[in-house]
Amino acid sequence: MRLLFVLLLLSMSVGVRGVASVADEPRPKKTEKTKVSAEASAAFSGKLLVVPMDGSHWVGIKAMAQELGRRGHRVTVVIPEVSMRMGPGKHYDTLTHPVPYGQSEVDAILSTQKDFLETAQPFMERIETKYHNFVRMVNFIHVTAESLLFNDTLISYLAKQDFDAVLTDPMLPTGSILARKLGLPTINLLRGIPCALDMKAAGCPSPPSFVPRPFTGLSDRMNFKERLINTLVALLEPLFCRLLFWRFNNIAHKFLNEEVSVAEILSESDIWLLRIDFTLEFPRPLMPNMILVGGINCYLRKPLPQDLEQWVSGEHGFIVFTLGSVFSETPEEITSVFVEAFRQIPQTVIWRYTGKVPDNLPNNVKMMKWVPQNDLLAHSGVRAFITHTGSHGTFEGLCHAVPMLMFPILGDQTENAVRMAKKGAGIMLDISTVTTEGLLQGLNELINNTRYKENIQRLSALHKDRPVDPLELSVFWTEFVMRHKGAKHLKAAVHDLNWIQYYCLDVAALLAAIVLLFVILTVKCMKLCLQKLGKKKKQD
Amino acid sequence: MRLLFVLLLLSMSVGVRGVASVADEPRPKKTEKTKVSAEASAAFSGKLLVVPMDGSHWVGIKAMAQELGRRGHRVTVVIPEVSMRMGPGKHYDTLTHPVPYGQSEVDAILSTQKDFLETAQPFMERIETKYHNFVRMVNFIHVTAESLLFNDTLISYLAKQDFDAVLTDPMLPTGSILARKLGLPTINLLRGIPCALDMKAAGCPSPPSFVPRPFTGLSDRMNFKERLINTLVALLEPLFCRLLFWRFNNIAHKFLNEEVSVAEILSESDIWLLRIDFTLEFPRPLMPNMILVGGINCYLRKPLPQDLEQWVSGEHGFIVFTLGSVFSETPEEITSVFVEAFRQIPQTVIWRYTGKVPDNLPNNVKMMKWVPQNDLLAHSGVRAFITHTGSHGTFEGLCHAVPMLMFPILGDQTENAVRMAKKGAGIMLDISTVTTEGLLQGLNELINNTRYKENIQRLSALHKDRPVDPLELSVFWTEFVMRHKGAKHLKAAVHDLNWIQYYCLDVAALLAAIVLLFVILTVKCMKLCLQKLGKKKKQD
Repeated sequence: MRLLFVLLLLSMSVGVRGVASVADEPRPKKTEKTKVSAEASAAFSGKLLVVPMDGSHWVGIKAMAQELGRRGHRVTVVIPEVSMRMGPGKHYDTLTHPVPYGQSEVDAILSTQKDFLETAQPFMERIETKYHNFVRMVNFIHVTAESLLFNDTLISYLAKQDFDAVLTDPMLPTGSILARKLGLPTINLLRGIPCALDMKAAGCPSPPSFVPRPFTGLSDRMNFKERLINTLVALLEPLFCRLLFWRFNNIAHKFLNEEVSVAEILSESDIWLLRIDFTLEFPRPLMPNMILVGGINCYLRKPLPQDLEQWVSGEHGFIVFTLGSVFSETPEEITSVFVEAFRQIPQTVIWRYTGKVPDNLPNNVKMMKWVPQNDLLAHSGVRAFITHTGSHGTFEGLCHAVPMLMFPILGDQTENAVRMAKKGAGIMLDISTVTTEGLLQGLNELINNTRYKENIQRLSALHKDRPVDPLELSVFWTEFVMRHKGAKHLKAAVHDLNWIQYYCLDVAALLAAIVLLFVILTVKCMKLCLQKLGKKKKQD
Repeated sequence: MRLLFVLLLLSMSVGVRGVASVADEPRPKKTEKTKVSAEASAAFSGKLLVVPMDGSHWVGIKAMAQELGRRGHRVTVVIPEVSMRMGPGKHYDTLTHPVPYGQSEVDAILSTQKDFLETAQPFMERIETKYHNFVRMVNFIHVTAESLLFNDTLISYLAKQDFDAVLTDPMLPTGSILARKLGLPTINLLRGIPCALDMKAAGCPSPPSFVPRPFTGLSDRMNFKERLINTLVALLEPLFCRLLFWRFNNIAHKFLNEEVSVAEILSESDIWLLRIDFTLEFPRPLMPNMILVGGINCYLRKPLPQDLEQWVSGEHGFIVFTLGSVFSETPEEITSVFVEAFRQIPQTVIWRYTGKVPDNLPNNVKMMKWVPQNDLLAHSGVRAFITHTGSHGTFEGLCHAVPMLMFPILGDQTENAVRMAKKGAGIMLDISTVTTEGLLQGLNELINNTRYKENIQRLSALHKDRPVDPLELSVFWTEFVMRHKGAKHLKAAVHDLNWIQYYCLDVAALLAAIVLLFVILTVKCMKLCLQKLGKKKKQD
C-alpha cells in the first residue's frame, strides 16, 4: 500500500525543474549534426496543436513547439490562463483557457512540494501533510484538464482549425483525449508513465526477466529474488494504471461520450518520443514507433550574460548548484550545511536559490533566483554539478560531461542518481542527512579524483554519438506524422488482441490439452495391452 | 518434413541478384539527406575487416565497404579466389584466399538453381535433382568457410592487422566466428536468418501472437488457427536453427577450440543492420542495437549510358524485366510467352537475359546480359518492373515507385510479392503457368490503371521519408562500433538467462505453488472448521 501511495504521489507530482534553458531565438548551431530531411520539411507547412504538461515536462515540448514554428508550421499551444511555467514563445501561438484557480493556488501547490525536505515534523503529521498535498495536486491536475476539455467554445474553435496532428505529453492524457475527439494523429513526448502504460499502449514487450520496473531500483541483471519482485510489480502494473488514471478515465467517458479508457486512447498514438537514452537506461525492447530523444534540451544553448561569464571565469573553476524549482529553497539547517562547505572550497558557486539569502554568505557563492543551467554546464570552467538529478538536469550534466554530486529527492531522480553513481560519473548523498564534512569530501573527490571526469566524458561521448540530434529527430517525426496524417505502418497489430490472445494462452491451452490427451490415451492403451497380456498369460 | 526441407533449401541457397548497381565512384548526392556526424567521422580513421557473403548479399556489404573506404578508413575485404560476384573495389583492399574449387564449379552451382523453373521433369526426378543441388550448395558453402578459417597464414596475418571491427553477413557466420577468434566487435548486415536466429541472438522478443514467422505467409493479424500455426513454427525454430547451423557449429568448435554454438557467437554481435522496412514488414518489437536499413542500395545511382538513355526515351515509356542472376535465363517456353506479350505492347522492354536471344525478338525488346537495374528504375520513363521480387529489387522498385509485375520464385520473394500485391502496388503471377494473355492483362492493368502507381507512390513516400538515408545510417553505426570498440550499452542482458529464466517460468512456478498452497490450506481450514462445527452440533 505504501509503495502504491508513493507511486501515486511521485507520478502525479508535477516535477518542476529549476531552470528554463529553452531559447526563444533560433537556436545556434552547436555541431555539424544532421540536417533532417530539409527537402521535405521545406516543402511542407502544417498545423500542429500542442497540449503540453506543466513543470519540467514543459521544457522539451516548448523546444519542439519553437523549432516547429521556426520551420514554418503554424503551431498552437493550448495552456491554462495561469500555470507554473508555461507561456508564450516567439514561434508559436498561445491559446489560453480559463481555470477556476489563480496564480496564488499554483504557487501554493509548488511550495507544498518543499514539505518533502521537512524532517522536523512528527511522522504521522508528515504523512498527513503529504496526503493533503497529494489530494490538492491531484485535484489541481484534473480540474485543469476539465477546464480545457469542457470549454465548449475552445473545443469547437479547435475543431475548426483543421490541425494535422497533436503533440502532447501523455503523462497527463488531456491532449490524447482531445486528439481522439478531433480525430487527429498524436505524437507523444515523455519520459515514461510510472505504471508503464506507455509500453502497454504501444504494445511493447517488457519481459520482467531483464526489463526492471520503475522505482524498484533493480538492474537488468537480476537474481531469482529480484526477478520475483520485478514480476510481481509487473503483475500489479495494470492495477497501478487503473488507480493513476481512474479520474482521467471518467473525464474521457464524459468528454468523448463513449466507453473508452485512457489505455485504449493512448494505444492510438502514432509516435512515442521517449526522453530516455541507453547510456543511462538498461537496454530493452522497443517498438518501431518509439523514438529515443533523451537529451532533447542539451543543444539549446545561448552564451552566458557578461556578468555571469566574469563570475565563473575564476582560476579554480566553478560549481553549479540547483535542486529544481521544487526545492529552489531549502530548510535553513540544510542551507547552512552547504554555505559552510562552500566557504571552504576554492571554486566559485552559482546557486539557484529563491529563499532568503543567508547573512554570512561567503564571497565565492552567488545565489540567483534563476540560472541558465544548461549554458553554465556547457561552460569550460565548470568543475561539478550539484543536482537533484531530475531527468533534464541529468541529461544536461551528461551532455556536457560534468561530474555530479547528487541529491535525488523524488520521482525518477533516485534511479537517475543510482545509475550515474554506478557508472562512476557522480556521487550520491542524502540531502536530509548531509553534513558539511560529507559535502566537502564529496566535492573534493568529485573535483580532484580524475576518474569521475573520465567516466562522465566516456558516457557523454557515447550519449552524444548519435546520427541525429534528439531535437531534430523529434521535429522530424512530428513533421512525418503531419505529412502522412499518422504513422500507421509503424503501429503493431496488438490492440485487437486481449491478453489471453497476446500471450497465446489459448494456443498453449490447446497444445497442453493435446499433449495431455496423448499421454492419457497412451497410458490407457498400455494399460489395456497389459491387461490383455495378463489375461492371455492367465489363460495360458 | 517438407517444410523443413524447403526451409533448408531456400535459406541455404545463395540468392543471386540480377544486377549490380554498386557504384565504384563516390556516390552522387541525390537529395538533401542527412550528413551523418561529419565531425566525428572526419576525426576518426579506423581499420575494418569485412567478411561478406556472396550473391545478392554482396550488394549492401560492398556499398558499405566502398563508402567506409571513401571516408578514409582502411577497409579489408576477405573473399575466396573465385566467387559468384565478389571482387575488388576502388576504396577497399581485397584479400583473397584459395579454395578447392574453380570458377566452373561456381558457375555450375549457379546454373543448377535454374532447375527451379523446370517443370517438365517427373516429380521424383525433380526432388532428386533438387536434393542433389542442395547438397552441392551446402558443401560449397561450408568448404568456402573452412578454406578461410583454416588458412593459418591468412588468420595470423589478419590477427596482426589490429582491426577495430568486423562487418559481416551472419546468414553464413564465417565472419562472426572469425571475429570471436580475433576478439573484435561485429556489425551484421542482413535481411534476416530464416529460423529467426538473428532475433534470438539479439534477445529480441517475437510474440507469436502478432509477429508472423518467415515463410508461413501469415500477417500480423491472425485468427486462432493462424496463431496456432505461428506458435508451432515458433516452437520449432530452435530445431530449424540447429539443422541449419550444425555444420557451422562443428566448424566453430574446431576453429575456436571451445564448445560454443553459432547462436552464442551471434549473441555477441554489437550492431544488427537489418535490411527491412516497415513499409513492407509488419511492425514488430526491435532491440536498441537493431538498425533498419532496408533500401540501402536505392541511392547508389549513376546516369544511364547514352545508348540506353536513347533506347528508353520512347513516347510510351519502358519496362524493366529482370529475374535475378539465378533465373537470368528461362526455359524456352517461358521465354516465348514473354516475347509474344512484349510484341503486342507499345512500351520498349529492357530484359536482363543471359540465354540465347530468340530469333523472332520484336524491335521494342532489348535483351542484355547485365542491366543497371536501379538506374533504369530511377528513370522517369519507366512504366513497370517485371521482377522476381528479390529483396534488393523490391526495395529498388519501392524506392523509385515503379509498379511491379511479380514472379516470385524462392526465398523471401513470395512474401515480398504477397505484401506488395496486398498493398495494391503490384500484381503477382506464377511464372510456371503464365500465359501471353495473362501477361498482357497484367501489364495493361499495371500501366493503365492509375491505382497501382498511386499506391506505390504512397508507399514509396513513406519508405523514403526517413531522417537518415540507410547507407549513411549503416556507415554511421559501423563507425560507431569502430570508435567505441563495440556498442555494449545497446546489448540487452538476456544472454546469461536460460529460457526458463527468460520467460520467468521459475517465478511463475513459485507463484503458482504459493497460490496452490494457499488454496489447499484454505480448503483444509474450511473442512476442519466444518468438521468442528459438525461435532459441536452433534454434541449439542
